[in-house]
Amino acid sequence: MKQNLDQLMEARNLDALVASGKIHGNPALYYLTGGAGMTSAILVKRRGEPATLIAGPMEREEAAATGLDVVVSSRYEYASLLREHSGDLLAADVSYYQRIFADLGVQGRMGFYGLRDQGQAYTFLHALQQAIPELEIANEYASNVLTAARATKDAAEVARIREAGRLTASIVEATVDFLREQRVGDDEILRQADGAVLNVGAVHAHIRRLVGMHGLEDPEGFIFATGRDAGIPHSKGTPAAPLRLGESIVFDIFPCEAGGGYFFDMTRTFCLGYAPEPVQQLYDEVHACLQHIGGALAVGEETRRYQQLTCAFFRERGHPTIAEDPKTLEGYVHSVSHGLGLELHEAPTFRDTTENTARLERGHVFTVEPGLYYPERGMGARLEDVFWCDGDGVFHNLTEFPFELVIPVG
Amino acid sequence: MKQNLDQLMEARNLDALVASGKIHGNPALYYLTGGAGMTSAILVKRRGEPATLIAGPMEREEAAATGLDVVVSSRYEYASLLREHSGDLLAADVSYYQRIFADLGVQGRMGFYGLRDQGQAYTFLHALQQAIPELEIANEYASNVLTAARATKDAAEVARIREAGRLTASIVEATVDFLREQRVGDDEILRQADGAVLNVGAVHAHIRRLVGMHGLEDPEGFIFATGRDAGIPHSKGTPAAPLRLGESIVFDIFPCEAGGGYFFDMTRTFCLGYAPEPVQQLYDEVHACLQHIGGALAVGEETRRYQQLTCAFFRERGHPTIAEDPKTLEGYVHSVSHGLGLELHEAPTFRDTTENTARLERGHVFTVEPGLYYPERGMGARLEDVFWCDGDGVFHNLTEFPFELVIPVG
Repeated sequence: MKQNLDQLMEARNLDALVASGKIHGNPALYYLTGGAGMTSAILVKRRGEPATLIAGPMEREEAAATGLDVVVSSRYEYASLLREHSGDLLAADVSYYQRIFADLGVQGRMGFYGLRDQGQAYTFLHALQQAIPELEIANEYASNVLTAARATKDAAEVARIREAGRLTASIVEATVDFLREQRVGDDEILRQADGAVLNVGAVHAHIRRLVGMHGLEDPEGFIFATGRDAGIPHSKGTPAAPLRLGESIVFDIFPCEAGGGYFFDMTRTFCLGYAPEPVQQLYDEVHACLQHIGGALAVGEETRRYQQLTCAFFRERGHPTIAEDPKTLEGYVHSVSHGLGLELHEAPTFRDTTENTARLERGHVFTVEPGLYYPERGMGARLEDVFWCDGDGVFHNLTEFPFELVIPVG
Repeated sequence: MKQNLDQLMEARNLDALVASGKIHGNPALYYLTGGAGMTSAILVKRRGEPATLIAGPMEREEAAATGLDVVVSSRYEYASLLREHSGDLLAADVSYYQRIFADLGVQGRMGFYGLRDQGQAYTFLHALQQAIPELEIANEYASNVLTAARATKDAAEVARIREAGRLTASIVEATVDFLREQRVGDDEILRQADGAVLNVGAVHAHIRRLVGMHGLEDPEGFIFATGRDAGIPHSKGTPAAPLRLGESIVFDIFPCEAGGGYFFDMTRTFCLGYAPEPVQQLYDEVHACLQHIGGALAVGEETRRYQQLTCAFFRERGHPTIAEDPKTLEGYVHSVSHGLGLELHEAPTFRDTTENTARLERGHVFTVEPGLYYPERGMGARLEDVFWCDGDGVFHNLTEFPFELVIPVG
């Protein structure tokens, strides 16, 4: 949680942190500013001190609204630095940061955060290191002080994720209603009011509208995939494919709050009209697995254990899994969970590898999403709910949507 | 343009380029893959050779649909590398890239592109450089080979931007219709059908819905700001502010295609009911400036010239400008133009600094957006159209929306 930031900085021996870039779509800076309505900024924080936000003069009011200490960037006179360095942007940027560090008394071991073009980031930090020999750039990689802080959510964050979940469930419900209203031809293919075949592309367009109408965004898209595509976990669906009765449909939707805020993530599997026996069986096994994993959640348990439990559950029922064959494209082929927050996938990881020592903690918000895939048999099933571990170690399912495979149509 | 990529690589002495990360919201990789429906990938291209896309097994079909050469990432057996390095993700990632480079015959001077957390990017590229001493990482900064290629658009890109423009204009029109339908109280404040005051927040919510319904996204948000907020260029508007007759409203909207594609960007200034004389005068001067700049566009002209022209135009009419006072918050306070494409702001830049040697070229797509701001007088005006320079050097205005300050209401 954000309130632990100083402790986390101390544990990682960081004297200061710098986050920069855009606010929107840039979780590091969104998190530290509380999602300010600004375009971009630089935030500097010394351990044990409040953060300072350096904002452009045109965004001074939005910066002030964050409640952080604000410095208007014109104080550092970038234009004069650019002249001094004969228009060399890299040299001017390095001098600009040196001015900021001197002004704010920042030095020592520092972490740099926020999305940036990777080559540009390397060029800049390399040049900054050359210019300030006593600067030590923290060599964080797999996790950093901000992803560690973000892994556990406070009450305000959970409330926002829960509300995003309510809106997401409402989009799924509206999509089901939309499908239910269609006509069915003699060929078991769905038709729109004008008689034209309803294809996956038209459903995609409808879902996209629903996302906007519910005040959410879908920066990562969504999955509404039928038949064979439902058997390929990341297939988003083939726009030209018609909707046919009895085909499995995987609908995985993961929008975020408008303005680039918190994500939700849920999946349901549907069949229009009726469910063929093999699809029903797949669905029942996936549903039983979700209940199995949901019931096994416990504070302090290693996260990788849940991936192992899922593999064992499906293996016992005769399915191939990636535990035995990392290259399998049939059976159970992905990870059962991921943390959820300002990124769709964030800490904790549930990867079943020896280096993953993460354990379930109070404040974690994460998905549980078992699935079974048989692309060559033209079917797949996945179900996904979001869970939150509260301050008492009690797990809550934040996904309020029923499990019904068949959508009656026609 | 993409077709010039090999020439640009040669001019910059690059033997190969690597782009990685997500596809969506990551212009480098979106551009090189044509916006594949994948989550993430690594793309490697040697100069003079076709690009190779390295995709996860779950996204093999989306990868194939790009038409690029595809390698499924399981070929490089990451899991075994992770075991080999005892779970050290950095060491495993470095070895993974070494395997890829060896397999694809990549070496020499290379550029690395795509958004990544900046500290992580530095740590990774530093470690990669240590592991491969003969690797030379290109020290591109202010521009790179991809931003240079992207600065000029081909016909397909222009068609997409033009269509995004048509949809954006349609959103502005629907917003005007929405405002026109409201009732007006005796206090000159707009009221909704139920008698409640219509505030800026309600208009924001309506615009957000319109964006989704038109199949666009607004990853950077939009500006609908009234009165004093209209006098602060980057203010997005105060949600609690009521809509009042006679106040200037700056509506600047910059959505992109769903799925993280091409942006459009347009601004209109409105007054509800009537325009007070000072607002009308501001508007007329800004409109005249837009026509002045639009008429002065010429292939080969230095882009910084248009910023100079704009400052001169407003200075002659008695307004302060940032040319004389870089810190001014009144008068003309920003840049008149920016390139537009997969990023809202991209090359060419129109910055009026000696280091900016950019000139207008065939294929450029850019905004022209003069504005005048007087926050303490509670008003501002900005108008913005998008222009494209075609292959014959003819400039086309891609913004089809009229200039009418007053929206009749009540």
